Amino acid sequence: MSDHPKTSPSKPRAEKDIDSWDIETDVAIVGFGGAGGCAAIAAADAGAEVCLFEVASASGGSTALSSAEIYMGGSGGTRVQQACGFDDSTDAMFTYMMMCAGPQADEQKIRNYCENSAAHFDWLVSLGVPFKDSFHKERAIMCLTDDCLLYTGSEKAYPFAEHAKPCPRGHNLEVEGDNGGPLFMKIVTENVEKRDAITVHYETRALTLITNDAEEVVGIVVRQNQKELNVRAKGGVILCAGGFVMNEEMLKKYAPKLSAGTVPIGNPGDTGSGILMGMGVGGVAINMHEGFVSLPYYPPASMTYGILINDKGQRFVNEDVYHGRLGDFALRQQSDRLYFIVTVEQYGDYEQVSYLGAEVAGTGETVEELEEELGLRRGSLVHTINTYNEDCAAGEDTLFHKSAEWMIHLKPPLVALDVTPGRGAFLPYFTLGGLDTLPTGEVVNPERTVVPGLYAAGRTACGVVRTAAGYSSGMSVGDATFSGKLAGMQAAARAS
Amino acid sequence: MSDHPKTSPSKPRAEKDIDSWDIETDVAIVGFGGAGGCAAIAAADAGAEVCLFEVASASGGSTALSSAEIYMGGSGGTRVQQACGFDDSTDAMFTYMMMCAGPQADEQKIRNYCENSAAHFDWLVSLGVPFKDSFHKERAIMCLTDDCLLYTGSEKAYPFAEHAKPCPRGHNLEVEGDNGGPLFMKIVTENVEKRDAITVHYETRALTLITNDAEEVVGIVVRQNQKELNVRAKGGVILCAGGFVMNEEMLKKYAPKLSAGTVPIGNPGDTGSGILMGMGVGGVAINMHEGFVSLPYYPPASMTYGILINDKGQRFVNEDVYHGRLGDFALRQQSDRLYFIVTVEQYGDYEQVSYLGAEVAGTGETVEELEEELGLRRGSLVHTINTYNEDCAAGEDTLFHKSAEWMIHLKPPLVALDVTPGRGAFLPYFTLGGLDTLPTGEVVNPERTVVPGLYAAGRTACGVVRTAAGYSSGMSVGDATFSGKLAGMQAAARAS
Repeated sequence: MSDHPKTSPSKPRAEKDIDSWDIETDVAIVGFGGAGGCAAIAAADAGAEVCLFEVASASGGSTALSSAEIYMGGSGGTRVQQACGFDDSTDAMFTYMMMCAGPQADEQKIRNYCENSAAHFDWLVSLGVPFKDSFHKERAIMCLTDDCLLYTGSEKAYPFAEHAKPCPRGHNLEVEGDNGGPLFMKIVTENVEKRDAITVHYETRALTLITNDAEEVVGIVVRQNQKELNVRAKGGVILCAGGFVMNEEMLKKYAPKLSAGTVPIGNPGDTGSGILMGMGVGGVAINMHEGFVSLPYYPPASMTYGILINDKGQRFVNEDVYHGRLGDFALRQQSDRLYFIVTVEQYGDYEQVSYLGAEVAGTGETVEELEEELGLRRGSLVHTINTYNEDCAAGEDTLFHKSAEWMIHLKPPLVALDVTPGRGAFLPYFTLGGLDTLPTGEVVNPERTVVPGLYAAGRTACGVVRTAAGYSSGMSVGDATFSGKLAGMQAAARAS
Repeated sequence: MSDHPKTSPSKPRAEKDIDSWDIETDVAIVGFGGAGGCAAIAAADAGAEVCLFEVASASGGSTALSSAEIYMGGSGGTRVQQACGFDDSTDAMFTYMMMCAGPQADEQKIRNYCENSAAHFDWLVSLGVPFKDSFHKERAIMCLTDDCLLYTGSEKAYPFAEHAKPCPRGHNLEVEGDNGGPLFMKIVTENVEKRDAITVHYETRALTLITNDAEEVVGIVVRQNQKELNVRAKGGVILCAGGFVMNEEMLKKYAPKLSAGTVPIGNPGDTGSGILMGMGVGGVAINMHEGFVSLPYYPPASMTYGILINDKGQRFVNEDVYHGRLGDFALRQQSDRLYFIVTVEQYGDYEQVSYLGAEVAGTGETVEELEEELGLRRGSLVHTINTYNEDCAAGEDTLFHKSAEWMIHLKPPLVALDVTPGRGAFLPYFTLGGLDTLPTGEVVNPERTVVPGLYAAGRTACGVVRTAAGYSSGMSVGDATFSGKLAGMQAAARAS
């Protein structure tokens, strides 16, 4: 045990400064959320001894806080997709995910994900994760019944549907209510506990990596019960310590657009320390500016019949996209106000069920009345709604290509909700940047050379999800569990 | 002289692996553009011995390729501002530059720049840089006369003018035509050459930094005439090696939005090697996603009377902003086409003088005819132009707040230019990310701790300019020369 007065995650410790090893293992894993848990299971099943370090008193991470929908498909479909009559092709999934990831897509990583995602489903089932062979038809952010399969992205919306055959790929666990996350982590934790090769250290903070003269990662320094412990990891260290959504300084530096959000989605451990540790040994963080800032305006799904406008009275996106994409386009506007406009009829008992929490900014018996009440330029909203209603009658959104199924005449009386960031509406946010890795989970430097002995998975890595405009629910837990599993296998192989 | 088979910029060499030093100096500088030249002069004038390494056969860098407008003001005004009757306050300049830099602004760096920018003018004059006490009134991207002062940003446009008193701050050198860059670098080069303390090594490539066990930068390995030379630098190394606009892989990884641009603005040495070297020794690169992609649609200034629309027939920005801001808003649109619409009268001899190079997409004796020719939704362009013309008559752009001076009735016949990225229009682009530094030029790590002995300036650093939406001409050469000078002084102080 050594004692260093100042330890910062981005300053690794040199092996030659280590007096003695307190713990020796094959694979050290930082963080016991979905990524870390799956990494531990996969490493142990590949024959490695594993030490799992978690700063909290229990497992969970952000996965336990989530709905734990898991984005899976391709290869003709998972068992559930097939049972529900969806024949999902790997190509369609790949095309969709490449569009989602935008110009910064990691094609190799996405291809690997799509080709092996159905097998990942089977692996999760083998761990005991329950999925019911049923389809949840309603447009929803999360499934509150125990049904499994649902559309969780913009698969059916423009422009995605024009290029990739739509298929639902969100897999919800067989549990009532929004309880998928806790159940998922309970199952993962039980799997970890029953494997003798895995030792879990709770209330243990990872401080900094240990490198040798050849610049390989050979271990990690952790603090437990006020003592620093030197951990030697023969196969290497896997960082599964989440993102940096709880680190205000990093957010300001890297992802300033997230300041428009109101509620960070993550756990208190999402301080970016895993990313900083990786950067400190030569790993490169990429896509750090990107993040998810959403306007979760449905359910009720009937809200989708509404339109979103800026303070010029203009629509700017097809409103049938995933709420994260809608939020992304909202943030691109140079506009003092953003309004969501629905008919009073569609509005219904909105306040009881919506996640949006936006205030009513105006109502109108006529469009003109609402336009005036919102202080919009005379004729602007009238033109927008006239155009929209004409398009509804013709069954085609000529401007933004909203699907005909969501095009219903906006017949006054109308309600306008103020969804301007900072004015009451709920805008959840999280980060989408992290350490650059190969599909194996190996962390790479700016020139994409592997940093030997270092792996990252989950949000500490920059995974298959690259943009807010292309985010779909289930991609985070999907990526975390998938990338965790691969990193665990890779580190175990290196140890042996 | 040592010989290593593989050298990559992001892998520093350990001092203990250096057999002997080929060159010993106080300050080593990489890159002889505006930043490196000013750094060398400032370091030499502070008493240091300087070695300047330039990969090309001559000085110049991107500064020599530019117009070398220099953004300066505050403190009551530079000599030129005062002579032209502009009383520029530091506060107004600070407010403007903070708005320009957006949420990722480095307040400390911008404050330092604004407070010392008028003195920087005096320093440049002391080097012999000629500025005429004259004001160029015409709205222009660059000044083709030998006049000095001009508006080079969005100072007079919404929303900037509402918060910061407008003042022209672009300082053009006293030279006819677009010849400021070569003249500026000629003067800087002469200043370098007449200082005995500075040795310039041309055709010399910086390979990688040298660090000691305490993780201080103590020198640099360069290659000259096919031989590797080990350079020891007592005060440290200043990286002035430009940005990464010529590195396709880095662009794809960090700044994918720049793929919309057509012509990279920079020199062949802008490969990002300086940034990579800094990252390799613990420095952090920030704002890497941001870049400038512009639609330089003026001159002639009369183009500003036109409007920019998306394929919904909607305007989306006040067209009197700096062309870089206009380009930034254009890229935010989900739109297959972007059109710039002007009257045939304003269009005039456009093809002779414009920088845009866009093709005519349609013309119309009436708005309806143009709307149809462009394939826009019936009524969309009519509504937009009716609204615009009503606003012109009232003297107020109710939607986008274009200044009244640019509001003239769009009276058919009209011309539409196709300015869609990728369809012929000229879209210059460059990067705006780099190593995070203190105002002194000291490179810092992710936790903002100084990397001892390492400095960066110009585009290798992330300077006062942070966003395309807030870019103004002259900010790059302004920042390069200012930050170079400060880094030179700081490194010289460390050497002594």
